[in-house]
Amino acid sequence: MSANALSGTTAAPGRQFVLLGLGAMGYGIGRSLLRAGLAVDGFDLNRDAQNRFRAEAGLDRTLEDACGEADGAILVVVNAAQTEDALFGAQGLADRLRPGAVVVSCATIDAQKAIEFEARLASKGILYLDAPISGGSARAAKGQLTIMASGTPHAFGRAEAALDAMAETVFRLGDCAGPGSAMKSVNQLLAGIHIAATAEAFAFGLAQGVDADQIMQVIPRCAGSSWMFENRGPYIADGDYRPHSAVDIFVKDLGIVTDTAKGAALDLPVAAAALARFKEASLNGLGREGDVAVVKLYAQASGVGLPPKRYEEN
Amino acid sequence: MSANALSGTTAAPGRQFVLLGLGAMGYGIGRSLLRAGLAVDGFDLNRDAQNRFRAEAGLDRTLEDACGEADGAILVVVNAAQTEDALFGAQGLADRLRPGAVVVSCATIDAQKAIEFEARLASKGILYLDAPISGGSARAAKGQLTIMASGTPHAFGRAEAALDAMAETVFRLGDCAGPGSAMKSVNQLLAGIHIAATAEAFAFGLAQGVDADQIMQVIPRCAGSSWMFENRGPYIADGDYRPHSAVDIFVKDLGIVTDTAKGAALDLPVAAAALARFKEASLNGLGREGDVAVVKLYAQASGVGLPPKRYEEN
Repeated sequence: MSANALSGTTAAPGRQFVLLGLGAMGYGIGRSLLRAGLAVDGFDLNRDAQNRFRAEAGLDRTLEDACGEADGAILVVVNAAQTEDALFGAQGLADRLRPGAVVVSCATIDAQKAIEFEARLASKGILYLDAPISGGSARAAKGQLTIMASGTPHAFGRAEAALDAMAETVFRLGDCAGPGSAMKSVNQLLAGIHIAATAEAFAFGLAQGVDADQIMQVIPRCAGSSWMFENRGPYIADGDYRPHSAVDIFVKDLGIVTDTAKGAALDLPVAAAALARFKEASLNGLGREGDVAVVKLYAQASGVGLPPKRYEEN
Repeated sequence: MSANALSGTTAAPGRQFVLLGLGAMGYGIGRSLLRAGLAVDGFDLNRDAQNRFRAEAGLDRTLEDACGEADGAILVVVNAAQTEDALFGAQGLADRLRPGAVVVSCATIDAQKAIEFEARLASKGILYLDAPISGGSARAAKGQLTIMASGTPHAFGRAEAALDAMAETVFRLGDCAGPGSAMKSVNQLLAGIHIAATAEAFAFGLAQGVDADQIMQVIPRCAGSSWMFENRGPYIADGDYRPHSAVDIFVKDLGIVTDTAKGAALDLPVAAAALARFKEASLNGLGREGDVAVVKLYAQASGVGLPPKRYEEN
């Protein structure tokens, strides 16, 4: 299902966007939007990131001026609180955007929150696309993300040019907010378990005297592999605990998963075991390290030695 | 590292093999050996499977006669007890094979058992290759397995023609038995967790009203995917709980994992959570169903409806 195949759209696709959040994902998305010829006003509390992006974008407008012209806003913030703040709090996009503009919400949030945001914006005539993303910063910069989207045909239509620029694949999962975030939570359940499993597998192999590089050679050719194993395993083999994606992200995302499940009276014991590992890592001061730092819990408890650092700082 | 790249081998590669175990994996391996022009005497307690294979192989010798001629024996049995029985018990290969013959042991077994089998066979002049496999029956039939092998150069040399015929990739992980099975246990830790995670993800998505077919469309394009998700997910979406690979296999394999970890004073909480699911499924009478039947535990506990059966019996 490619973004080009979107049908039933009724709003002219927008060409001017406000982009909130210029971390690794947001920055990559911004560059993909610029490459597609869209006008993008970028904003981030990190002034260095904001200035760097603005130099590339060639736009240096205030949030108020940018919103007055924009066809939509793309939110690449961390969580529901930041999304709410952007829309109804400090940045106040809900009052700054024009009626008919679209908010493309990319953070991983609870589906109920997405439904709530859509309704609150609708009362101001603003469209909302529930559009969580997957793929990592490298794919963001190439415009090759996967988007798990749901929203009205109007919202899809207004966002179309931006979605085309950001994503290789746009899944259209429903005609209102909710299904996009629900699917993302399914993905995060798997992703979080797989990261914890990757750490556990390395600890288990190392404890048996298996070499970390051999593990990285063999497992991707076997039935035990996963996207996360192939993506995160090299960090463990290289002793790289920089926060490419931090432990605390999965404290949050698996927290959303288990909270949502509680609401459905559903027990998720494997996800709960993985969440407990991320929480314990965070309590042990590892929350801002890369998520594979959960492997350090195993090493500390058992005395297993982990591979030393062997990467170049850049 | 391809089987063709084996170096340092000193024994002439064998062309005649005894094959014990003609289940889905063994049968596929047998066909790949025949296609490569090797002579294969197949044996299985299931007489239908044995007769079917013998008709293809064009050999109908007794175990005693076959072993007297064979360059080696390939054991595609279920566990360590069956391997031990084949070597030193009922089938007594240790007394029937000629000195210099090689035993290629493919079952998932504890690394300590592999080391023990190698030593006991060495006292009779028989070579042993610790050679667990990964890839499933479809790849077995195409000669495209991955083999996690370790053993002496002599053992590799004698087994070379068979390994070439069975596998797309032969990893050579050490010069004695043990490392092959240790790596397989790392793979099984991941594989078992990923199957349980797949079941949990479907239950979680279905509980939120997400469609099973949409889950199968979206997740393989996202960072939550795994080999097992892509392989087993369609069974859940199709309501197919036939034992392509049974729940009890992972009661066994994750049991090997947690027992081995106990010996290393290593806690594996995520693997333990997955093992608990497989054990509970087995206690609930699902042990001989396909391993994705663990999803039924979630459905029973929460009332979530699972996709109905929609496959053709063959």
